[in-house]
Amino acid sequence: MQRYFSKELVNNKFKLTNDDLYHIKTVMRMQENDQIEIVYERKTYLAKIVTNYEIEVIEILNEEQDNNIEYVLCIPLLKETKMDLILQKATELGVSKIIPIQTERSIIKLSNEKEDKRISRWTRICKEASEQSKRVDIPVITKVMSMNELNLDGLKIVCSTRNKNNSIKNVLKKVSKCDRIIIVIGPEGGLSTTEEDLLIDKGFIPTSLGNRIMRVETVPIYLLSILNYEMMR
Amino acid sequence: MQRYFSKELVNNKFKLTNDDLYHIKTVMRMQENDQIEIVYERKTYLAKIVTNYEIEVIEILNEEQDNNIEYVLCIPLLKETKMDLILQKATELGVSKIIPIQTERSIIKLSNEKEDKRISRWTRICKEASEQSKRVDIPVITKVMSMNELNLDGLKIVCSTRNKNNSIKNVLKKVSKCDRIIIVIGPEGGLSTTEEDLLIDKGFIPTSLGNRIMRVETVPIYLLSILNYEMMR
Repeated sequence: MQRYFSKELVNNKFKLTNDDLYHIKTVMRMQENDQIEIVYERKTYLAKIVTNYEIEVIEILNEEQDNNIEYVLCIPLLKETKMDLILQKATELGVSKIIPIQTERSIIKLSNEKEDKRISRWTRICKEASEQSKRVDIPVITKVMSMNELNLDGLKIVCSTRNKNNSIKNVLKKVSKCDRIIIVIGPEGGLSTTEEDLLIDKGFIPTSLGNRIMRVETVPIYLLSILNYEMMR
Repeated sequence: MQRYFSKELVNNKFKLTNDDLYHIKTVMRMQENDQIEIVYERKTYLAKIVTNYEIEVIEILNEEQDNNIEYVLCIPLLKETKMDLILQKATELGVSKIIPIQTERSIIKLSNEKEDKRISRWTRICKEASEQSKRVDIPVITKVMSMNELNLDGLKIVCSTRNKNNSIKNVLKKVSKCDRIIIVIGPEGGLSTTEEDLLIDKGFIPTSLGNRIMRVETVPIYLLSILNYEMMR
């Protein structure tokens, strides 16, 4: 069943964005009495279309359990096609937050004005992927940050090619329990030594991903797959 | 350094395809004495460009060790963009063989004539991805097969939504050692019950991938990531 996110529930009726209403009316060609799923405050509802395309609650469905661990992905600014792929796949694989980071070797720069537009575009991609993969939340995309601003608590990992011995497997095996995993991924040319050292000072563990040579957009998909697997009961 | 695959070594000179020569001359604009890497019979050589764009051996480089386990991916016929993504990412993640399979619920059908063209196109994508990810081999893409023809030995997994209890983690944990892992992935609507039962009869283990709802093209990337991780020392 088609799923949409709503931010407002008034008098037993959900408010949807114009984009979603367009999707319901024009793309899906739904009619009065057709049913859809609405996610509101991390709970899933069965709802139906009533007069004037208002969306009325039928009942609350089972609350789906998302994994409780928060996955935070810090990724460099990349070309749009790569960025789009990462956002879509990371959402499918349960990412909680995406922090675009400035890195010395990123080719892409964003003006402040463009940044806002870009973030709303990225958020739209994550929202659509959340609906498709039946998530009860949408990943948060923050403003672009510098390495220095990465001050989150949790298990902190920086993907590194310097230290071949400390593999992602070793790092994850040593973790008994954590609420949040923060991963920093470098751009095509990798992070600079200065950047990696700065992160190590901030408590990030330099971690090798193994022997495969992957494109930069493959790395977050690879890592989130591994995290899902490792956290699987 | 740029890497190319060669199938012929005569008098200390490698033969390359016209496509690769075009890439060297026109895309990379290489000149006499520029160096490249050539992979020939799973060994990597340092080579240089000499007169008339002939490619001369300089020395043999260290033989790189690919993982010894063979990963065989059986995937339904999908839209080209999805197929391309799978082929590129699966190559980066070390797939050995890709078997396109006919499934009841695939929307895509291929005539015999188109099949040959499509397979050479797919092989070209895998070849380029192998060069980029510095592999010493290129994944083999077979002709389109029916479920009935999937007669390979090894650890056999069919992705299933029927049995939630037998997770990929359980299945892989029970394996002590194997030389080949064969994975069957269904199309958008999943495999039919008949198809899944046929594969179970052939020794495939119905396996749940966990609770995430993924697009079909994400599944092979997710699974190969997990296999790489599980086999990591």
